[in-house]
Amino acid sequence: MVPYTPNPGRSFMSDNIAGASAEIVQAIIAAATEHVPPYGNDTVTKAARQRLQEIFEREVDVYPVSSGTAANCIGLASLVKPWGSILCHPDSHINNDECGAPEAFTGGSKLVTVSGNDTKLDPQSLRAAVSRKAGDVHSVQPSVVSISQATESGSVYTVDEVCELSSIAKSAGLRVHMDGARFSNALVHLDASPAEMTWKAGVDVLSFGLTKNGAMTVDIIVSFDPTLASELAFRQKRAGQLASKMRFHTAQIEAYLADGLWLRNARHANGLAARLADGLKSIPGPELLREPEANILFCRLAPHVIKELLGRGYQFYHDRWAPGTVRFVTSFSHTLGSVDELVEAIRSCYVTKP
Amino acid sequence: MVPYTPNPGRSFMSDNIAGASAEIVQAIIAAATEHVPPYGNDTVTKAARQRLQEIFEREVDVYPVSSGTAANCIGLASLVKPWGSILCHPDSHINNDECGAPEAFTGGSKLVTVSGNDTKLDPQSLRAAVSRKAGDVHSVQPSVVSISQATESGSVYTVDEVCELSSIAKSAGLRVHMDGARFSNALVHLDASPAEMTWKAGVDVLSFGLTKNGAMTVDIIVSFDPTLASELAFRQKRAGQLASKMRFHTAQIEAYLADGLWLRNARHANGLAARLADGLKSIPGPELLREPEANILFCRLAPHVIKELLGRGYQFYHDRWAPGTVRFVTSFSHTLGSVDELVEAIRSCYVTKP
Amino acid sequence: MVPYTPNPGRSFMSDNIAGASAEIVQAIIAAATEHVPPYGNDTVTKAARQRLQEIFEREVDVYPVSSGTAANCIGLASLVKPWGSILCHPDSHINNDECGAPEAFTGGSKLVTVSGNDTKLDPQSLRAAVSRKAGDVHSVQPSVVSISQATESGSVYTVDEVCELSSIAKSAGLRVHMDGARFSNALVHLDASPAEMTWKAGVDVLSFGLTKNGAMTVDIIVSFDPTLASELAFRQKRAGQLASKMRFHTAQIEAYLADGLWLRNARHANGLAARLADGLKSIPGPELLREPEANILFCRLAPHVIKELLGRGYQFYHDRWAPGTVRFVTSFSHTLGSVDELVEAIRSCYVTKP
Amino acid sequence: MVPYTPNPGRSFMSDNIAGASAEIVQAIIAAATEHVPPYGNDTVTKAARQRLQEIFEREVDVYPVSSGTAANCIGLASLVKPWGSILCHPDSHINNDECGAPEAFTGGSKLVTVSGNDTKLDPQSLRAAVSRKAGDVHSVQPSVVSISQATESGSVYTVDEVCELSSIAKSAGLRVHMDGARFSNALVHLDASPAEMTWKAGVDVLSFGLTKNGAMTVDIIVSFDPTLASELAFRQKRAGQLASKMRFHTAQIEAYLADGLWLRNARHANGLAARLADGLKSIPGPELLREPEANILFCRLAPHVIKELLGRGYQFYHDRWAPGTVRFVTSFSHTLGSVDELVEAIRSCYVTKP
Repeated sequence: MVPYTPNPGRSFMSDNIAGASAEIVQAIIAAATEHVPPYGNDTVTKAARQRLQEIFEREVDVYPVSSGTAANCIGLASLVKPWGSILCHPDSHINNDECGAPEAFTGGSKLVTVSGNDTKLDPQSLRAAVSRKAGDVHSVQPSVVSISQATESGSVYTVDEVCELSSIAKSAGLRVHMDGARFSNALVHLDASPAEMTWKAGVDVLSFGLTKNGAMTVDIIVSFDPTLASELAFRQKRAGQLASKMRFHTAQIEAYLADGLWLRNARHANGLAARLADGLKSIPGPELLREPEANILFCRLAPHVIKELLGRGYQFYHDRWAPGTVRFVTSFSHTLGSVDELVEAIRSCYVTKP
Repeated sequence: MVPYTPNPGRSFMSDNIAGASAEIVQAIIAAATEHVPPYGNDTVTKAARQRLQEIFEREVDVYPVSSGTAANCIGLASLVKPWGSILCHPDSHINNDECGAPEAFTGGSKLVTVSGNDTKLDPQSLRAAVSRKAGDVHSVQPSVVSISQATESGSVYTVDEVCELSSIAKSAGLRVHMDGARFSNALVHLDASPAEMTWKAGVDVLSFGLTKNGAMTVDIIVSFDPTLASELAFRQKRAGQLASKMRFHTAQIEAYLADGLWLRNARHANGLAARLADGLKSIPGPELLREPEANILFCRLAPHVIKELLGRGYQFYHDRWAPGTVRFVTSFSHTLGSVDELVEAIRSCYVTKP
Repeated sequence: MVPYTPNPGRSFMSDNIAGASAEIVQAIIAAATEHVPPYGNDTVTKAARQRLQEIFEREVDVYPVSSGTAANCIGLASLVKPWGSILCHPDSHINNDECGAPEAFTGGSKLVTVSGNDTKLDPQSLRAAVSRKAGDVHSVQPSVVSISQATESGSVYTVDEVCELSSIAKSAGLRVHMDGARFSNALVHLDASPAEMTWKAGVDVLSFGLTKNGAMTVDIIVSFDPTLASELAFRQKRAGQLASKMRFHTAQIEAYLADGLWLRNARHANGLAARLADGLKSIPGPELLREPEANILFCRLAPHVIKELLGRGYQFYHDRWAPGTVRFVTSFSHTLGSVDELVEAIRSCYVTKP
Repeated sequence: MVPYTPNPGRSFMSDNIAGASAEIVQAIIAAATEHVPPYGNDTVTKAARQRLQEIFEREVDVYPVSSGTAANCIGLASLVKPWGSILCHPDSHINNDECGAPEAFTGGSKLVTVSGNDTKLDPQSLRAAVSRKAGDVHSVQPSVVSISQATESGSVYTVDEVCELSSIAKSAGLRVHMDGARFSNALVHLDASPAEMTWKAGVDVLSFGLTKNGAMTVDIIVSFDPTLASELAFRQKRAGQLASKMRFHTAQIEAYLADGLWLRNARHANGLAARLADGLKSIPGPELLREPEANILFCRLAPHVIKELLGRGYQFYHDRWAPGTVRFVTSFSHTLGSVDELVEAIRSCYVTKP
């Protein structure tokens, strides 16, 4: 067994500050020795594909890539023509945090935003948007609805909500993309099956994120539409995302899904966010902005508390969304102790000052 | 120490069938535990950058990516306008094996081929090409010369040859890109320094390949032109190649360069190709098509020998270039024994038949 | 003299329903006979270039194209990197009516909207937008401010307003683009000089529209930045916009600018909109939504009036922006009589009904 | 009637030096006066569409554009995925003279050349190319065969030759594009019907060039595949090629096709090239390189003759293809007299010198 020393420290900036689960590392070690065919024609990759089919209870097409940006953009490009538009939330990752990569990969499609509370698409607004200027040659054509599950603010669509949005999309001829950078966190929150939360709810292409939840450097494009298989394969290659030593991607996938590591990790991370919420509620002062559903917690802290926490070495995003608004993100590799310490630190800040 | 069992088998298809060096795996293990800032703001990445500066004896800008295709295409895109052309050999990897990815990343630049023996650009032909239709608005404009070092056929440009090509390029205002998917193999063949073979020889941007020579899944864009830094950073992000858990890329880089692993691996691989050449020369029948300079060997074998070898489980490319032409590729993880066995297998095929 | 029979009819849908001024047609006739060099190396083109330099009181680079979309998109592409963003009004033509062409021509730049009253960019909002996430590799980079002069709603920026926006842009390192599809209408409204309204006010590249104001099929990219000349020339060619029989574009330009045709046409069109406004004000019922500054008038009419006008053969856009909102556009080829008839038609609708 | 004074002068550089036929100019005059709906919803455009359907003896989709580059590139983009390749002759216009515009419009498709005599694709070579690396994700996928009719050297495919190439393309699943910048010249040479030379011979999308043969500034994308209609419409708009005052394009089309102007013009131009060939044959010295089939003639002249002709004010391309090789292009607006004068000029040069 490889020694694995969790060292959570005091950073709650993002789940991408974490390393990798021991099981993932072990799988990498095991994958490193053999001579195997490149580009995915190996038994590890075969096993990972098989595993994904079991998880999703059906045939799926699988394209491992090295980043969530790549997963989102290649997936979206397979669903939209250059003159199509992608309907997404103004605060979605694809709209704000990928430096225009969706526009680049799609040949210049337009992201058109659809508002809604809790970083979720509002069905009424979506209904108006899906047919806007349809058939008008002067306008981009609504083509894909992209749903983040969980969202950037840590909220989670219920299965019914996904179904409703998909239904609105499908009735107007649009396709459905799910940005699942935190797919596992959403899944364990809902206690739904992967199938229920995706293709059974109308999702055509999923970005299945592993990196934030225990893997090293792999996310997966999972397609539920077999007619996209050839296009996705060429787009993956052409994007520089067809790994020659594919096994190093797929060994992570296999270890992630085997024995429920992914679910354990996600439950752990979500549990810490809930624990943090409980802790904050026990303190007079902090305002919880939303009950955390996944592994992200937004709250409002007093300026002097933020300052004091930073001074003690805590790391987190603050004052980006609104003055005093703070985001804490927990992960598989954070410990209960680190969360409890954070709670106590906040408590003490409120007690002592200003 | 992690157990590492080389298992070379009988495949000589490519160096991408190999796993990873033990040192690389160890570095991954070490990198897996800590909480560190994402996107390269961590000490491992800092160390890797530092190491690259030492290796190249100057400031360099460094962009780790997950594939050689990405390294080549992002690098090229920073050197060429969409209406520019990239001068390359007809048999180069960027022209044949990247599914048009260079055209995609550059916004539709044209690859214009320049012939030459041994898969090398011929200086005379290049001289004619660099100014072809310069300033003619109806034509793509020669903008970059891309040199593969080592080439697809395993030949290696001498430092003087690189200098000559660069000089031709520079005198006409073109930039120089080096596709170094097998950079280390070329380097140890020449016994040159990295600086001599690159920026001192006029190279502006290098694709420094690690994956084929012992790493898992990382290649590096190394830029010697500081004015490209901002553009390369945005292009890397926008291509889905800015890894959040960057440390898993850079830990490989650090381990690769530390203690000369990269050079040892390359010498080993090159040595095996030379040993295979010597073996073939000792057999009446096989025709060595070119003295191997790196870790690739091209020869001509009798049809019955090819058939027999395949029957015995040997794997290699054959009959793609010309009838009877066979390519063997050796790697850091092939053993002397495996090469000797291959030689004896070929010898026995020639003795017994047809 | 060629016979020219204005036949304005009852359409006020847009200024692109008009034909061409007699002077433009005469210039085409004159240009049709000679053998001249292609691609702009002819005396007509030379004269047009010269004329533009006089009009703008300086050296300018001139690229005639066949549409406003092409003028805007090629111009913008020369000012923005693919990872840059273009700041524009939500109701601007480039954002709504070009089917994503700006995204296509720029290699996937993002249009980021900046609000403001009267379809004009609000300086305060712009000030916040120009430096948003500057230097953040995860975000598109504010790169160009695009100003429509006149705007889609017919409002006109004062010269001071253009200067202020340019100043905000320039102070943050952004470039300034002006969409002048109705440049002439804005100019005569302001009684400013072309120089004052463009380069002296900080504009780098102008789309100078002729088609809506008397020409047949030509708009011009006018660049005030000589460093863009080469790029614009290649982009024009590569966009399929370098006309071989360039003279047919430039003959229109020459005729348009000579003897003040462009200003007469614009004054006529603007005057008709003002006359229409006066007429509407004389009728109890219609609500003028904004005093027309160029040749576009927005008002609110009663539903039965809209219906009745349509029934009488009048054509105009209505109920697109808000229920009851009507847009009338006048042009160089509409007559006073036709406007007076329209006013009387509206008056009679209000008198008789409901 | 508009006065029309042919003034051929002494330029034989290209057919794009000519102006426009009187009938075309008349049509423009007629189109200039009315108020009509924009974007092709007018009676002139309707008539032109109808005319094209009669000419091609079937339903066709029609997209008028302002240049041959636009016609070729938008048409090709509708037939090829970004990872597809376009098979064309090395000397074709799309490969050499459009500054990489096909790569730009297609999102980075690759032009793969297929050789052949007389600037025509060789069927044997094409047969090898259409299935090259089909299904190999590392390679661009053969997707379209682009045939120039007439070719850049003035040769003309027979209908049987077009059929053979199309058959090879279709049997491998490729589409067929015809670059008909000189479509009319080819047609009258073959004495075939437009239908026979296009869709009956397997052509999917045609660039129907008018500009070189009497029109001012309009070429047409003619699609014989109704499933491409929507895509072509959006691509046309998005390329800045959907003219608001469409009538000025379509009036040219209508006049061009009505009463056989297009065929008369092409016969005149071809006849002049044949007359020039006859003249050259009557002179000892000039070497006719190929019997002209359309309106382009290649010959070899002595250096002193070239020099002398240039000195007398003659204009033509020379020494671009090989030393002493000269190209003369005739057009609808060249006169018999001008060709006869050219012949006599050449004769006198040979007589008097060196």
